[in-house]
Amino acid sequence: MPKGVPLPDSVPDDGLTTRQRRNLPVLAVHTGEGKGKSTAAFGMALRAWNQGFDVGVFQFVKSAKWKVGEEAAFRTLGQLHTENGVGGAVEWHKMGEGWSWTRKKGSDDDHAAAAAEGWQEIARRLETQAHRFYVLDEFTYPLKWGWVDVADVVRTLRDRPGNQHVVITGRDAPQALIDAADLVTGMTKVKHPMDAGRKGQRGIEW
Amino acid sequence: MPKGVPLPDSVPDDGLTTRQRRNLPVLAVHTGEGKGKSTAAFGMALRAWNQGFDVGVFQFVKSAKWKVGEEAAFRTLGQLHTENGVGGAVEWHKMGEGWSWTRKKGSDDDHAAAAAEGWQEIARRLETQAHRFYVLDEFTYPLKWGWVDVADVVRTLRDRPGNQHVVITGRDAPQALIDAADLVTGMTKVKHPMDAGRKGQRGIEW
Repeated sequence: MPKGVPLPDSVPDDGLTTRQRRNLPVLAVHTGEGKGKSTAAFGMALRAWNQGFDVGVFQFVKSAKWKVGEEAAFRTLGQLHTENGVGGAVEWHKMGEGWSWTRKKGSDDDHAAAAAEGWQEIARRLETQAHRFYVLDEFTYPLKWGWVDVADVVRTLRDRPGNQHVVITGRDAPQALIDAADLVTGMTKVKHPMDAGRKGQRGIEW
Repeated sequence: MPKGVPLPDSVPDDGLTTRQRRNLPVLAVHTGEGKGKSTAAFGMALRAWNQGFDVGVFQFVKSAKWKVGEEAAFRTLGQLHTENGVGGAVEWHKMGEGWSWTRKKGSDDDHAAAAAEGWQEIARRLETQAHRFYVLDEFTYPLKWGWVDVADVVRTLRDRPGNQHVVITGRDAPQALIDAADLVTGMTKVKHPMDAGRKGQRGIEW
């Protein structure tokens, strides 16, 4: 542990050793109306990569929100792992890509099915401990829209084996997810350039 | 611009073309009591690196907060630039390292002098456009403690030449800095593992 990490105020009466407690899996949620929810999740993924953790990114909303810059950077990092053994492995998946999700046509039913299928794939990976660190980017939206069952997600996350860390981003995180999470941060918009009529910028927005 | 980037509600009457407006330098502030302020700043830096921007990181608080994981990852990214021409150049500086800042001994006067000197170095770099993207990590604290003059910082940032993006992180950002910023996000703690007596974890906290 690096020096200066703050110690908790009290030691919990949970029968665990400090070592066991340090190895608990973390479920983090970044929610709220402000910027930085996904960006902070990718910053965490970068840290996890640096620790040699196998990183899996699963994106649930299309287009600009596919975050091409982050994807390119993480593919480079994953390549570094494959070729030079530096950091951890990286997989990057767009849930629904190739299905109706990314096309103009297609009904909400198609989107819902794609989202549900995406979640089933993540559930399988959690069961087999396919990754050590998961980013479920903008996953709150299919939850909010009822495309994926919140109770199923909470149960699957609660019962996930091993020491798999999961970060979920998006506005309006359901209360049951917040209750299940270990770390929840709300990002609040204080001021945004678009308020002044500015558009998105290369290197800032993507 | 990737498809789906939201357009602003109105076009400002500032005499600028869309292209000029798109190339405006951004000053971002991540403040508030919650997690993710620095992590989101490093996520932005990752995106900037991917665009080939020259990235400079300047850290103002010591020890665990030196963020060894991010530093290692960004040094790897910088090396990729140097050796393979991928992404942008990266410099990572700990302001005050080697001075009193990192030692138990030394008075507040020493810390204040180190912080002021660190800021002077950043001001020189802004003047010469040494970087394209700056992270001033935990820089709000020397401002809050009066070690660095807020008015001087705001003036220097406002008058910086070219198209240099700056992200400043830390709690209690001074109002004058918030007023000067283009993008301000407040990170709010909703729930934290340490509330449950958990300690920091490898791959999560560092």
